Amino acid sequence: MKLYWCPQSRSATALWLMEEAGLPYERELIDIRKGDQSTDAFRAINPMMKVPALVDGEAQVAEVAAICLYVADIAAGAGLAPALGDPLRGRYLQYVVFGAAGIEAAITQLYAKFDMPTVSAGWGSAERVCDVLDGELQKGDWILGERFSAADIVVGSGLHFAVKAFKMVPSRPSFDAYIARCEARPAWQRARAIEAAGG
Amino acid sequence: MKLYWCPQSRSATALWLMEEAGLPYERELIDIRKGDQSTDAFRAINPMMKVPALVDGEAQVAEVAAICLYVADIAAGAGLAPALGDPLRGRYLQYVVFGAAGIEAAITQLYAKFDMPTVSAGWGSAERVCDVLDGELQKGDWILGERFSAADIVVGSGLHFAVKAFKMVPSRPSFDAYIARCEARPAWQRARAIEAAGG
Ligand SMILES: N[C@@H](CCC(=O)N[C@@H](CS)C(=O)NCC(=O)O)C(=O)O
Ligand SMILES: N[C@@H](CCC(=O)N[C@@H](CS)C(=O)NCC(=O)O)C(=O)O
Repeated sequence: MKLYWCPQSRSATALWLMEEAGLPYERELIDIRKGDQSTDAFRAINPMMKVPALVDGEAQVAEVAAICLYVADIAAGAGLAPALGDPLRGRYLQYVVFGAAGIEAAITQLYAKFDMPTVSAGWGSAERVCDVLDGELQKGDWILGERFSAADIVVGSGLHFAVKAFKMVPSRPSFDAYIARCEARPAWQRARAIEAAGG
Repeated sequence: MKLYWCPQSRSATALWLMEEAGLPYERELIDIRKGDQSTDAFRAINPMMKVPALVDGEAQVAEVAAICLYVADIAAGAGLAPALGDPLRGRYLQYVVFGAAGIEAAITQLYAKFDMPTVSAGWGSAERVCDVLDGELQKGDWILGERFSAADIVVGSGLHFAVKAFKMVPSRPSFDAYIARCEARPAWQRARAIEAAGG
């Protein structure tokens, strides 16, 4: 597998995932500050011209949440996804999607400061998103309770960005403790070291 | 399986999915105009207080895209998802996520009229989203080319909403033809009939 990535971007989430998955992979730098994402070669991999993107033989996948779903299912030994038939699979898929759609939308709303009726906004409101995550994280260490999963890679990265790195969302005790648990994972630390080394 | 839904809402996408999947399911109306989504009983099913939501034995799942991923994998006979190991699985996951996160974000931006740099916006811009979908749909009838999948249920519903129902996005020939192909599917028509009958 080859991960196309760039430091200081949403690629950090995919790096953390790859380090958790434990499967061999290469990295190729796409320097989005130099325009590498607009080449024909990269557009064939991801027409959205966004990192991260992953190539696995003939398979191509982009979008952080989709990369997490893809890798978590093939890295079965890493236990990053409840298997088909496991009752936790439903909530797992829900929180991976929610991390990509709900948390991202809440961050966008806080950044761009627009109003939208909570009934029709897919994420309700930034406050509702935070209340729901707070509720889940008070029930257990991870979003599925006892077990760490790729949903934590998406949700944990989103909360780290919104709460700790960019301070867009007021901190809550459950968020601080959860972010600390994420940061304590060896795979998180390896990902940060790769990023700090620029590759 | 039981689908919690409400007419004239994003539940329409889940109804279409259930009709494509061909597995037995029940429906329970959650009248979001009367506040049914805020009861303790429904909040236990989806703490976000949003329809649609699905319960399958002990499994619970909400978020349209997650419901699609969940059902498409268990309804293996319906061919709604490339299996694990199929090279199309990558793009399939990408476009299910993109339908939920990218198309929804583009619609939100058109509705709320805010600016955000395309480099940092996860969806780039509404125009980029449309260009990418236009490009994919010029290559084949469906988002994966020849084969219909649950990614079309998410993307087709999003485009139908944005282009045809709410006219937020200027039409393009590839969009019109694709929406017509979606509407021609028997499962789409059964879902519309269920909705028109109010249950
Ligand atoms: N929805 C995408 C967002 C990815 C994204 O926006 N990546 C940015 C960097 S954080 C990028 O590659 N920007 C380059 C550009 O748009 O030109 C995902 O989840 O992967
Ligand atoms: N991100 C959610 C959005 C669902 C959603 O926003 N549903 C609306 C109706 S279209 C709803 O239930 N609103 C009730 C409320 O927020 O109180 C999904 O994809 O399922």
